[in-house]
Amino acid sequence: MDADLRRLHDFITFTARLREVERHNNATPSRRESVAEHSWHLAMVCWTLHARFEEECGHPLDLGRMIKMCLLHDVVEIEAGDPSAWHRDGSGEAAKARAEEEVARRRFAGLPGGLGAELLALREEYERGATPEARLVRGVDRLNPALMRCLTGQGWADVGADAAALDRLQLPRVGVSGTLTALYRAVRETAVARGLLDDAP
Amino acid sequence: MDADLRRLHDFITFTARLREVERHNNATPSRRESVAEHSWHLAMVCWTLHARFEEECGHPLDLGRMIKMCLLHDVVEIEAGDPSAWHRDGSGEAAKARAEEEVARRRFAGLPGGLGAELLALREEYERGATPEARLVRGVDRLNPALMRCLTGQGWADVGADAAALDRLQLPRVGVSGTLTALYRAVRETAVARGLLDDAP
Repeated sequence: MDADLRRLHDFITFTARLREVERHNNATPSRRESVAEHSWHLAMVCWTLHARFEEECGHPLDLGRMIKMCLLHDVVEIEAGDPSAWHRDGSGEAAKARAEEEVARRRFAGLPGGLGAELLALREEYERGATPEARLVRGVDRLNPALMRCLTGQGWADVGADAAALDRLQLPRVGVSGTLTALYRAVRETAVARGLLDDAP
Repeated sequence: MDADLRRLHDFITFTARLREVERHNNATPSRRESVAEHSWHLAMVCWTLHARFEEECGHPLDLGRMIKMCLLHDVVEIEAGDPSAWHRDGSGEAAKARAEEEVARRRFAGLPGGLGAELLALREEYERGATPEARLVRGVDRLNPALMRCLTGQGWADVGADAAALDRLQLPRVGVSGTLTALYRAVRETAVARGLLDDAP
């Protein structure tokens, strides 16, 4: 095995461990979601909604780049962990960003050919929400755990959130798209109707 | 929500369930892999090896289509199940193919715009190994569970396979690429060295 293939091999065995990183929402009624399966569904949802997104924004959107951002966006959590979106403050956010940036440089930069540079650039684009594609992926990334908490019956008791709190978390991100906002409204309505989310005035 | 968005919503909640389909290989030392996380890693591996694959075969390979095949190739298992690659015979294969085809028609065909037709065509391309892209994805799909059985320490005891049996399962598929064959050889060697795979003559 030549040196370049050894580096690719090591990256493959590194990324394999994204299956071990647990998220805070469920994948099924009886277990937490892994970041790997979260990333898969993000890519599927972007693919499914791509034509709608283009229709809404009135210009082409690079689905290939969107899907790659979905696949890659949380790979650094293999070493940096997955903090809950419900428990972040300013200093925690900055420390998380620094830790993830360090993992990205260490794990991505040395990959052969143009691969390392591509991964670093895509991660940066996603983190900054620098393009319409990145902002839509960030919207789907926010919608997805709400969908799973609803579908699996997990609800929001573990984070003590009611519908108003969920709106505050979701709307700034899903608001990038009328389609994502409509899908969030549907999830919210279903969750309230099933008694998974408190919507008391 | 308009009728088209309702169809897309229902497809999203349908695909969400790929997290529930368990494979026969482990994801971590303590649990089986879901088909969703398997599909994610397949896409990552194809992306990682894409430049090598192009170098080997001497012509461009459509990575976007490869990644879409990875994401989609097992979605039908949500309803058709995931039979082990180790326990198949001719009649079982044919019945599996029919069941999966039926799920694909029922779940994909009615999707709005060009989406339904795209999903059906990509699934067909993958199943038939009709293109270099499809044959490479099929190679990665075969390599991946061997890698996970090795990395997680699961080994092959549950399927009663030794190294010769593993070669018979792997080589026809990974043989499509020198890179995939080299990666398989590395997995095999590591597994034998760790006592996970018997290589007695």
